Amino acid sequence: MKEVQVDFQPVGRRLNITIGQTILAAAQQLGLALGSGGLTAPCGGRGLCGRCRVRVASGQAGEITPAERRFLTPAQLEQGYRLACQATVTGPVKVEIPPESMLGVQKLQVEGLEVEVVPEPPVKRYNLPLSKTTIDNPAPLWQQVAGGLEATYGLARPVVDFNLARETEPQAAVGSATVTVRGTEVINIYTGRPAPPPVGLAVDLGTTKVAGFLINLETGATLAADGIMNPQIAYGEDVMARLGYALEGEEAYRRIQAVEIEGLNHLAAALAEKAGVATTDIEETVIVGNTAMHHLLLHLPVAQLARAPYVPAVTTPVEVKARHLGLDLSPGACVYLQPVIAGFVGGDHVAFILGSRIDAARKVTLGLDIGTNTEIVLSYKGRMLSCSCASGPAFEGAHIAQGMRAITGAISSVRLSDGGREVFWESIGNAPPLGICGSGILDAVAELYRAGILNASGRLDVSHPRVRRPAGGGPPEFLLVPAEQTGIDGDLVVTQKDISEIQLAKAAIASGTLLLLEAAGLKVEDLEEIVVAGAFGTHLQLESAITIGMFPNLLLDAFHQVGNAAGTGARLALLSMAERQRGEDIARQVGYIELMTQPTFQEVYVNSLLLP
Amino acid sequence: MKEVQVDFQPVGRRLNITIGQTILAAAQQLGLALGSGGLTAPCGGRGLCGRCRVRVASGQAGEITPAERRFLTPAQLEQGYRLACQATVTGPVKVEIPPESMLGVQKLQVEGLEVEVVPEPPVKRYNLPLSKTTIDNPAPLWQQVAGGLEATYGLARPVVDFNLARETEPQAAVGSATVTVRGTEVINIYTGRPAPPPVGLAVDLGTTKVAGFLINLETGATLAADGIMNPQIAYGEDVMARLGYALEGEEAYRRIQAVEIEGLNHLAAALAEKAGVATTDIEETVIVGNTAMHHLLLHLPVAQLARAPYVPAVTTPVEVKARHLGLDLSPGACVYLQPVIAGFVGGDHVAFILGSRIDAARKVTLGLDIGTNTEIVLSYKGRMLSCSCASGPAFEGAHIAQGMRAITGAISSVRLSDGGREVFWESIGNAPPLGICGSGILDAVAELYRAGILNASGRLDVSHPRVRRPAGGGPPEFLLVPAEQTGIDGDLVVTQKDISEIQLAKAAIASGTLLLLEAAGLKVEDLEEIVVAGAFGTHLQLESAITIGMFPNLLLDAFHQVGNAAGTGARLALLSMAERQRGEDIARQVGYIELMTQPTFQEVYVNSLLLP
Repeated sequence: MKEVQVDFQPVGRRLNITIGQTILAAAQQLGLALGSGGLTAPCGGRGLCGRCRVRVASGQAGEITPAERRFLTPAQLEQGYRLACQATVTGPVKVEIPPESMLGVQKLQVEGLEVEVVPEPPVKRYNLPLSKTTIDNPAPLWQQVAGGLEATYGLARPVVDFNLARETEPQAAVGSATVTVRGTEVINIYTGRPAPPPVGLAVDLGTTKVAGFLINLETGATLAADGIMNPQIAYGEDVMARLGYALEGEEAYRRIQAVEIEGLNHLAAALAEKAGVATTDIEETVIVGNTAMHHLLLHLPVAQLARAPYVPAVTTPVEVKARHLGLDLSPGACVYLQPVIAGFVGGDHVAFILGSRIDAARKVTLGLDIGTNTEIVLSYKGRMLSCSCASGPAFEGAHIAQGMRAITGAISSVRLSDGGREVFWESIGNAPPLGICGSGILDAVAELYRAGILNASGRLDVSHPRVRRPAGGGPPEFLLVPAEQTGIDGDLVVTQKDISEIQLAKAAIASGTLLLLEAAGLKVEDLEEIVVAGAFGTHLQLESAITIGMFPNLLLDAFHQVGNAAGTGARLALLSMAERQRGEDIARQVGYIELMTQPTFQEVYVNSLLLP
Repeated sequence: MKEVQVDFQPVGRRLNITIGQTILAAAQQLGLALGSGGLTAPCGGRGLCGRCRVRVASGQAGEITPAERRFLTPAQLEQGYRLACQATVTGPVKVEIPPESMLGVQKLQVEGLEVEVVPEPPVKRYNLPLSKTTIDNPAPLWQQVAGGLEATYGLARPVVDFNLARETEPQAAVGSATVTVRGTEVINIYTGRPAPPPVGLAVDLGTTKVAGFLINLETGATLAADGIMNPQIAYGEDVMARLGYALEGEEAYRRIQAVEIEGLNHLAAALAEKAGVATTDIEETVIVGNTAMHHLLLHLPVAQLARAPYVPAVTTPVEVKARHLGLDLSPGACVYLQPVIAGFVGGDHVAFILGSRIDAARKVTLGLDIGTNTEIVLSYKGRMLSCSCASGPAFEGAHIAQGMRAITGAISSVRLSDGGREVFWESIGNAPPLGICGSGILDAVAELYRAGILNASGRLDVSHPRVRRPAGGGPPEFLLVPAEQTGIDGDLVVTQKDISEIQLAKAAIASGTLLLLEAAGLKVEDLEEIVVAGAFGTHLQLESAITIGMFPNLLLDAFHQVGNAAGTGARLALLSMAERQRGEDIARQVGYIELMTQPTFQEVYVNSLLLP
């Protein structure tokens, strides 16, 4: 069988394979589908996800398949873009792996829950015939459209978004139009070419990550999903730092708002490109975010958000024309921001409850959306009570000596055996470990405690063979991976301070849970279901979280790890007006308790610091 | 039974009544509950509506009732506010009727036109108590407002204009608030000081003149009225010149739009100062204008307006936040632009029909709104048909050799006697004459024709002693006022060309009338009423207009000169949502005919040039 060379760029790796194999198979033989800088293929090469996009820079690949026609635009095919899992090698080829197809980018929780919903979007499409505007038939375009909507579809008193009217030639040509109507307002028009499906954008605007979903508003299908780092990170890692920056003055506030808008425009453009539509085709947007992100995006007053009692400026839903925020979407598109509840319980919490259906829970249910700030909701007897706790960034790898985000090379799970003398670990992408991510450090602490190497107050047993004093002195540390097995120049260790950080984080979450139960007059034993959301919450080992007392000690099948439920909630609110209203109802029904003002806060928190 | 005196302010009426009666009963005995400036009591004095709020400025009234506690805040009760239907007279009292409690039906009167309207504005006021936002009571301002609107007034799902939220301190202080709500959106708030009455701005945006009216939206009272020259005049005297300027390029268009916005801001500021309110108190605005002014204000496409078939970009009503047009009013204020009908039949024509009630005429009625462009409507058998005719600026003094606007020193009326040998004239302000305005030149031409000095084709009789050739030669002229009686250095004359200009103008109006009648299948004899609007239309001598054939030869009492009916229409649409909808209905019902495309246009026009 004839072999030809496949040359991968920019990694600079090449190999010879037999003709007829796929480009993905070649990448896999090189290990490129595993290591950092390699090729992503989330669906396992079945042509279902469209993520393994590559460009054939020179040489030949086989026939374009139907799957490729689905995920790539004609323009992209023209430029040589292919799906690696579909394109077969027919001769020597040079293949470029574009950055967005590379592995090792942040593992963003963009899949989320699958919830059934009947599309009932705020925008609706109508087709109308047009006749040419002439001196004998002087009806201009919008008069024909308004008249047609009224006569043919019974829409009462339609009006035209005046920005759309600004951007459209007022004289009609003969033919037909597809118009998009929101309420009684015409917000978009397609003439002279077929209209793409009506498209909406759902955004989960997090402090660290921004997840976007492009949705077909008629079918509910997700056309594209992507995530970017929140560009405001340049102005502060956490919410307080961002608020502090905005409070430096009007110019600073304008800047931090502008980078967010710019980021959203980039995300929208990337999603539109993936889905093969234009950003001007995006006719509706829903954004959910924590209260600080919500306020900074809208340029609302934030001084009072940065100090007790941390009150939001607005708790009612906000709906504005996208253009008035600087978002470049369809000329008449609206942006809907899910209402926030309190200073630290935002629209993302509302979306989390909506997406996970906790508002309809029949059992006593606890919902936790874990992040730098963890929001917890308790649903019981038809009521809901929420709180927010400052769990900190330890689970995102920050404040941990050798912590890192959950990307390629991060230790994501840890098991000890032989009394802790032997350590088993897994790293993301099976790469040589570079550091420890949230689920890894959680496992490590839980395993250390289980093995008796930690006592209840979290002190390391200095007599254990893997516990040692660091070279320069100071508190003890546990040797997790010796230097020869790591991808870095040295050992990977768990320090005494790392353990304290995890104790602080888990105490915040555990005391939030206990104080919510107390406020509701319930006990831990009354809990029947626990829903855990967020990227870390979805990947953590439940046993470990129970072992260190972060989660209540329930049977494992009472737990549901639901991924990015807030993103799901955002998509629901985008796709259905009934869901949007349900979200508003949630925001109004949820009672909010401020943990710090609970009389037993101090006592509960201090107790929660201990390992159980 | 003991009687005491009740003294009502600001009306300055007083009476004696027996102790124990209510303040409302006293007002009713005075007839104050009936006449203009009186006290409103929509619920009939049953304590159900809270509208009959008065202030007991001195003296005593009985115990505060539960109904009063419901409708008045503790702060208002502190200040002496009471409900007139609840407060009983227990001793001599002085009672102030605040503007917002004054009786609703207001007669809008402009030069002969009287229209009754029940105020039903798009914005409504509500009073709410506030408590201080603290750590124990963390409800921020807008949450208290939204909650109060829902709980106390039954408003479903109120939201807050996000620009208002941007500009307001989010933490509540103890006290009370007066909020303005539009639909379900809170658009303004007053805290810490009494709210001024709700104020709206009505604008008649003419090519030459911009008239503004500041209106109390609860009583309908006009608080201030003023006019400015349209600042766009610097970019062209007439509509076509303005459109031409805007079409020079985007920068030119931006500039001509910006000067208009600036002019409107100046007008609003001047009116607010006159009325003793702030521009930020103006909570709603209605603008009516011809199609070109409408489009230039909104920055809509205008290329198609400047050439046949002269189609407007948008014929549906436009409603935008004032701030999005650059108008500096209340933070959440809206601007409503009355819909236009055709390229030369604009929102001012709709407002003219609305203000003059021609849409409800039972008789066959002709309405003429005379200006540089004259719009004519024919109302018959429940239908309306409109056209526009280019009557030109002659009636505004332009294109007339010694023409001028109708200001001090202009000859405004002319009578001839002794076969035209003697001339009687009047000037505005009785000043020495400087020139001739529209009504003066119309009179002059009619009198010359009546005296036989003009023949049917408009030629001057050169044998008449006052008809002469000008010194430098050329067509003949009629000596109106010799130099020694004028305020200028020379005679005032009527030239042969002046007469031709008036013939052209009257022919345009007369042929518009005839072609409308023809299109409706009617004859001049079928006309029963004629409504004449506009500044010139109101001041002209009807006999003169009939003499030269500009108006049909009806009995004088069939004519109604109604002044600025378009301005009245704008105020009606500002003051009442029912009137606004009626205006929209008018725009939809009016049929439009393009004179130039009528088969008999040429023939009718040429015949109309002759004097009858």
